[in-house]
Amino acid sequence: MTATSHTTTTDRLLAAVQAGVEVYDLGRRLFFGMPQSPNHPAFLLTLPRRHGDMVRADGGSAANDLLVMGTHVGTHVDALAHVSQDGRLHGGADASAAGAGGRYVELGVHTIAPMVRRGVLLDVPAALGQEFSPAGYEVTPDDLDATVARQGTPVGAGDVVLIRTGWGRHFDDPDRTRYVGHDSGVPGVGADGARWLADRRVHAAGADTIAFERLAPGAGHSALPAHRILLVEHGIYLIEAMDLDGIAAAGVHEFTFVMAPLPLFGATGSPVRPLAVVSRG
Amino acid sequence: MTATSHTTTTDRLLAAVQAGVEVYDLGRRLFFGMPQSPNHPAFLLTLPRRHGDMVRADGGSAANDLLVMGTHVGTHVDALAHVSQDGRLHGGADASAAGAGGRYVELGVHTIAPMVRRGVLLDVPAALGQEFSPAGYEVTPDDLDATVARQGTPVGAGDVVLIRTGWGRHFDDPDRTRYVGHDSGVPGVGADGARWLADRRVHAAGADTIAFERLAPGAGHSALPAHRILLVEHGIYLIEAMDLDGIAAAGVHEFTFVMAPLPLFGATGSPVRPLAVVSRG
Amino acid sequence: MTATSHTTTTDRLLAAVQAGVEVYDLGRRLFFGMPQSPNHPAFLLTLPRRHGDMVRADGGSAANDLLVMGTHVGTHVDALAHVSQDGRLHGGADASAAGAGGRYVELGVHTIAPMVRRGVLLDVPAALGQEFSPAGYEVTPDDLDATVARQGTPVGAGDVVLIRTGWGRHFDDPDRTRYVGHDSGVPGVGADGARWLADRRVHAAGADTIAFERLAPGAGHSALPAHRILLVEHGIYLIEAMDLDGIAAAGVHEFTFVMAPLPLFGATGSPVRPLAVVSRG
Amino acid sequence: MTATSHTTTTDRLLAAVQAGVEVYDLGRRLFFGMPQSPNHPAFLLTLPRRHGDMVRADGGSAANDLLVMGTHVGTHVDALAHVSQDGRLHGGADASAAGAGGRYVELGVHTIAPMVRRGVLLDVPAALGQEFSPAGYEVTPDDLDATVARQGTPVGAGDVVLIRTGWGRHFDDPDRTRYVGHDSGVPGVGADGARWLADRRVHAAGADTIAFERLAPGAGHSALPAHRILLVEHGIYLIEAMDLDGIAAAGVHEFTFVMAPLPLFGATGSPVRPLAVVSRG
Repeated sequence: MTATSHTTTTDRLLAAVQAGVEVYDLGRRLFFGMPQSPNHPAFLLTLPRRHGDMVRADGGSAANDLLVMGTHVGTHVDALAHVSQDGRLHGGADASAAGAGGRYVELGVHTIAPMVRRGVLLDVPAALGQEFSPAGYEVTPDDLDATVARQGTPVGAGDVVLIRTGWGRHFDDPDRTRYVGHDSGVPGVGADGARWLADRRVHAAGADTIAFERLAPGAGHSALPAHRILLVEHGIYLIEAMDLDGIAAAGVHEFTFVMAPLPLFGATGSPVRPLAVVSRG
Repeated sequence: MTATSHTTTTDRLLAAVQAGVEVYDLGRRLFFGMPQSPNHPAFLLTLPRRHGDMVRADGGSAANDLLVMGTHVGTHVDALAHVSQDGRLHGGADASAAGAGGRYVELGVHTIAPMVRRGVLLDVPAALGQEFSPAGYEVTPDDLDATVARQGTPVGAGDVVLIRTGWGRHFDDPDRTRYVGHDSGVPGVGADGARWLADRRVHAAGADTIAFERLAPGAGHSALPAHRILLVEHGIYLIEAMDLDGIAAAGVHEFTFVMAPLPLFGATGSPVRPLAVVSRG
Repeated sequence: MTATSHTTTTDRLLAAVQAGVEVYDLGRRLFFGMPQSPNHPAFLLTLPRRHGDMVRADGGSAANDLLVMGTHVGTHVDALAHVSQDGRLHGGADASAAGAGGRYVELGVHTIAPMVRRGVLLDVPAALGQEFSPAGYEVTPDDLDATVARQGTPVGAGDVVLIRTGWGRHFDDPDRTRYVGHDSGVPGVGADGARWLADRRVHAAGADTIAFERLAPGAGHSALPAHRILLVEHGIYLIEAMDLDGIAAAGVHEFTFVMAPLPLFGATGSPVRPLAVVSRG
Repeated sequence: MTATSHTTTTDRLLAAVQAGVEVYDLGRRLFFGMPQSPNHPAFLLTLPRRHGDMVRADGGSAANDLLVMGTHVGTHVDALAHVSQDGRLHGGADASAAGAGGRYVELGVHTIAPMVRRGVLLDVPAALGQEFSPAGYEVTPDDLDATVARQGTPVGAGDVVLIRTGWGRHFDDPDRTRYVGHDSGVPGVGADGARWLADRRVHAAGADTIAFERLAPGAGHSALPAHRILLVEHGIYLIEAMDLDGIAAAGVHEFTFVMAPLPLFGATGSPVRPLAVVSRG
């Protein structure tokens, strides 16, 4: 971050930025073959036009891409329209009727305002003295309380809370099924942990796993209580498949969280590249 | 923006955020049928699964999307790999060889670091006493100087400079070809304006037009000098099809600019939702 | 067609083939930018892998494609699931319920058996002494009767009947909107012509227009009586955007019609390449 | 097949059709999740518009699809542009140069003429007294000679020859990797079997396996001699992932083969639905 030196701003935020910030990238690289849930269309990126395919008379040439993907692929946010319970979306709207027309006008991802908020990383394995949470481990309210206490980072209304399990270490496994964890299970919060977050009225919650959810070994996605409690019952956005290892390694537990989902009109989610920003030293 | 009140941070940036900020959304909504260049794959978003299609035994249901689009569609950033001149990319690499393998490893959009920087809006028509720049109008260095002077916002090295023409007013025209402007032409900088920016060593430049370029009436994309000068010769990223009307209406000309392109490995561009953030009050 | 000479078959059909046949291609080439209805996803074909991108140690290399398209694009067949009237599909099934799950299991295009049948070309403009049917012209039962009489080709139950208007001449117009005809209108059968076909219990009906339907100038697709009568009321498949000029030029009005729609499970249509085959000489 | 009874044709082919034919479908159903090579984009089919999404004033409604797939997915044909050896395509053209522009103009799948030809099924396991060829088994020239002799179906120039291994039994395995066979291997011809076909100057060759090739256990696609010999050296088209079980069960070894690849301009392959047709009784 090279701050420009020849201006003097009176804007407090900009002054803080120009004094020097560290930007942590919480989004994972999107590439063909990366681990993703088989429930969502696979990520594809191709070049319809490469340099040299069509060169203008003046010697210029442009290359471009075609992107094909599900919106719950890579690091992404779940809009409230993503999940329903007993035929109802968050707020009680009829879930089937909401999608008529082929898009979710009311609770689609385009309705998520950009976030510039306090963010808190809860580094659960660090607090519990583990390298990473074991496969299928359920992160409990006690674990969350212990992590808050150890870090000294209380969680408040409107915050974005990111729960690290260390499971991100499997994202680059040659065996792509490991991170997805249908066989092994995946660590994460269950119903109780979700209620802990809802009680604190957080704005959004994120994790370094494929779903913001503890997945039992072999159970697949047969039950998703955290999705139900957070998205449907409390209107709390979920951010999944984040990269939380860099920020954890830096010991940064409190930061300015910035995330701007693509305003895909009517979609149930969006790929995102969330940032954690802190003033430097 | 509801700041959480029960915490006291020592982070200067977060303190500024918690004191209250205004967030301006500079990205346009992405929807089927929006204006876009015919050179890029059209935007499509469909729901492979809607609520009710597959309801789990516990009454839960998830809906999801398939996204198909070019990466230079809607508000987007051009990576350096996007344009070549005389067979060379920025830095001199052979453009044809760079794309072998079907992706641009070296200068792809995944190499763009997230931006948290000083941003400057140059509201050219406001400075020139116009409602908007006329079709095909070339924004000159004199225009840029006059705008800087009138606003009191000098442009410095490392800044992100956004040039408003007012052409965004045509984005929602029923006639989708108007914004694209192949017949009418589109206002913007030409070679001289591009050099003005390059001389100031800006980090990135954006506009509210389909291309960061003045397009002459009827000329289409036969020559793109600003792309050549900025992307190829100087390695300056371009951001196109921005929504600059809200921030202009608010009279905000200097701000913290935040943008995190999707790290699409090997791609030549990415849809983005850039933000301008200022301290409130 | 080079018949193999060293075998003697006892199969009557194969003997006819080996005695020599002419094969007329009734399908149009599929290419980026071809005329298509804006109601359907645009045709895209790109090369994710080109020769040279990945060469094996033994010197071999493979190139491959990504295909993105609507199924009612180019020469295509409409499955019965494509159209409903008053909430009902052909046979009375509830149209909304039929699509639950994101596919049409009952009347999808995968349920269309391959066709090897008598085909009849009704070359309407030739019979009426015209070069081609005018824009927006409605082909009447009298026209069809006159064409049958002039050609000496009665239409019977189970036949595939192809109605030529000559409108295919606009398929390669530089102005892609001409063939689609939203402004000009498109010639074809209306409700009366559709009933004429239904009365004869044809198996399928085709045309050289974007829709098997007369489109009034400026009316767009506001009413599609032939679709309703043929698909919904009588279960007769429709084939659209055919190339009927070659066969018409050859004066072939009766032939073996062969068409094998792709068995796209649950889809409402399929691109096809229908053939008309006749014994030579 | 209901022949129409009220017409009397003088066309020998049509007369044979109207006397009654059996049509065998040699194409597999295309569905989400079917086995396919990981080298090719996955098959996706979704409904952007379902019945009820948009109902016209007259009560009519149309549903439509978006199709996304590789062209070497499901039952498909390989165009000559698909494979190169030592930088050359069939006929000697430079393989890299041939794809410039993002399409193969010269040897793309659009250049394959529709086929109406003598077809021969070589039911290898039936001739060898096996239920199916074992995993990784190489079908030898001796096996092919024995099959021809046992069936009494010599192979001649211009024929389409389909080699059955019985491996199609794995297409519907719950374990999708079985049919693909990267671990187990797949039976098929090797270099010697390919030369046997080339020596007989067949027009095209097909199989009921994912590739027209014997794949050794664990070897993946590290060497593809049959592709090199047939596509590159001799210009013989390959048809893969066919369903040959129905025709084998019926004991039909000689037939009229009909196949019309989609004329996808510049593509390296096309999904197809080939037919085998024989006179009834």
